[in-house]
Amino acid sequence: MPFSLTPKDSSFYPLFTASAQNLVAATDVLGEFIHDQARRGPLADKLRELEHVGDQSTHAIFRQLNSSFVTPFDREDIYNLASDLDDVMDHIEAAADLVVLTGLGALPAEMAQQTALLQRAAVTTAEAMPRLRSLKDLSDYWIEVNRIENEADKLYRRLLSRLYSGEFDALEILKLKEVADQLEEAADAFEHVANVVETITVKES
Amino acid sequence: MPFSLTPKDSSFYPLFTASAQNLVAATDVLGEFIHDQARRGPLADKLRELEHVGDQSTHAIFRQLNSSFVTPFDREDIYNLASDLDDVMDHIEAAADLVVLTGLGALPAEMAQQTALLQRAAVTTAEAMPRLRSLKDLSDYWIEVNRIENEADKLYRRLLSRLYSGEFDALEILKLKEVADQLEEAADAFEHVANVVETITVKES
Amino acid sequence: MPFSLTPKDSSFYPLFTASAQNLVAATDVLGEFIHDQARRGPLADKLRELEHVGDQSTHAIFRQLNSSFVTPFDREDIYNLASDLDDVMDHIEAAADLVVLTGLGALPAEMAQQTALLQRAAVTTAEAMPRLRSLKDLSDYWIEVNRIENEADKLYRRLLSRLYSGEFDALEILKLKEVADQLEEAADAFEHVANVVETITVKES
Repeated sequence: MPFSLTPKDSSFYPLFTASAQNLVAATDVLGEFIHDQARRGPLADKLRELEHVGDQSTHAIFRQLNSSFVTPFDREDIYNLASDLDDVMDHIEAAADLVVLTGLGALPAEMAQQTALLQRAAVTTAEAMPRLRSLKDLSDYWIEVNRIENEADKLYRRLLSRLYSGEFDALEILKLKEVADQLEEAADAFEHVANVVETITVKES
Repeated sequence: MPFSLTPKDSSFYPLFTASAQNLVAATDVLGEFIHDQARRGPLADKLRELEHVGDQSTHAIFRQLNSSFVTPFDREDIYNLASDLDDVMDHIEAAADLVVLTGLGALPAEMAQQTALLQRAAVTTAEAMPRLRSLKDLSDYWIEVNRIENEADKLYRRLLSRLYSGEFDALEILKLKEVADQLEEAADAFEHVANVVETITVKES
Repeated sequence: MPFSLTPKDSSFYPLFTASAQNLVAATDVLGEFIHDQARRGPLADKLRELEHVGDQSTHAIFRQLNSSFVTPFDREDIYNLASDLDDVMDHIEAAADLVVLTGLGALPAEMAQQTALLQRAAVTTAEAMPRLRSLKDLSDYWIEVNRIENEADKLYRRLLSRLYSGEFDALEILKLKEVADQLEEAADAFEHVANVVETITVKES
């Protein structure tokens, strides 16, 4: 593979944007999945496909990293950004898969709310990625994602509080916790993405 | 915000010390919380307040990082140190909150012992933070925190062993595990703080 | 401790190889442990010994790092490689210890399969470590470990699916999940090792 000769290789930006837009698609499918019990099978398949698309974006970024002589940011930050975007997708796909494999039926309303927060985090992230080029106007993005993650954290605790309220038996709690934890970790992973963007911006400032 | 002109900005040290002293306060409140079942509500509120104080220290460090032209250590180490101190607080606050929201009553003696270890780790950490300035005499600190974390790990397994001994039903185990895991993760986070201090010292040596 | 004078200190390579070979020994003992219910006590003791051996390798690497003026790779990558190898061992030892302390009897076949994957990851890793010296022919290694981790992930989900199938009660599920999670985290930790090797190779390319 030939080394790129442009001093600051610009081909990373569209790859990060593609990766984040894939998360917008995935969180939308997850929203349908949560609500539409009858179509969960095909929607889980759709999420598995989107995860494969995400993997391809991630590996395209790693290949680009291998073949670039000079990178726009530190190599490790590019690596972390790609990995963290990939983590979000993994947790979203896992959440849906766990609903199917534990045989859960209707889900608590809090899970639909968790998913709505993930959708907002995905849209905010996808809108911010193109601004990595200029490194301008990014603080609004990471503040908003941190705000969303705080909200997700409160929601997660409210959900735990409900799980332990006596409404569910131990087995149901176990199953629901598997799913709730993946949704919570997806929100955390969005925050990790935002933290890497903040780190990049701080280094370059 | 004006850039700092001192070549090695010294204003990070008091911020790290304040952050660690806040953990001393928090582990003390957690100690009372574990023992004094009647006052758990107001003590959990107190921990929430201390968490907000901690967040403010963390953000003061990040702002300082943004406005400093030259930093005493690598930017990422300052970032990690602040984040890991913040993590300790988050796990302590979460442990108390989970006791309240799962409606647990008296807690196993092992949890009081876990908390006592966290108190020791907090005091040790707070005493070490001012020595970041000279980077001298820090190895005793990280060795001690590693020792405490080892002890915490053994204690955590003893607690698990008890949880599964037949004394508790599945629902109680689930609730107690939520809390035990947060206490264990707080001990891990203290070790992460010590690891970052070790990394900084190794780099500067 | 005298500083090493060789410009690129070569004494790290045998330490990494020793650390990985120790994981080959540990995954072999874990294989016996899973199958041979009668000898679990002494085999868990054996794993505890191997964990101490691993700790000594890890600390030998850290001491070497402290006393080397020039290192073959970035200090933080050496640190991460040693820590991630150490993590694998911790999860393997914890898995066995949790089987003993929760008093589990016969284990699901999927756990033997998880262990077989860990054995393959250990052998692959131990074979790759000596190639760190030349940084050649390492991509096959990390691709293989990523493939193993993918397989481990699918197997873990199949195991979860079985755990929630109705075959087990809530208490048994809790106990089995403790063990399954440690085995899954050991597979993840092997992947982290491979990721660090990939990072080192990318930086040096």
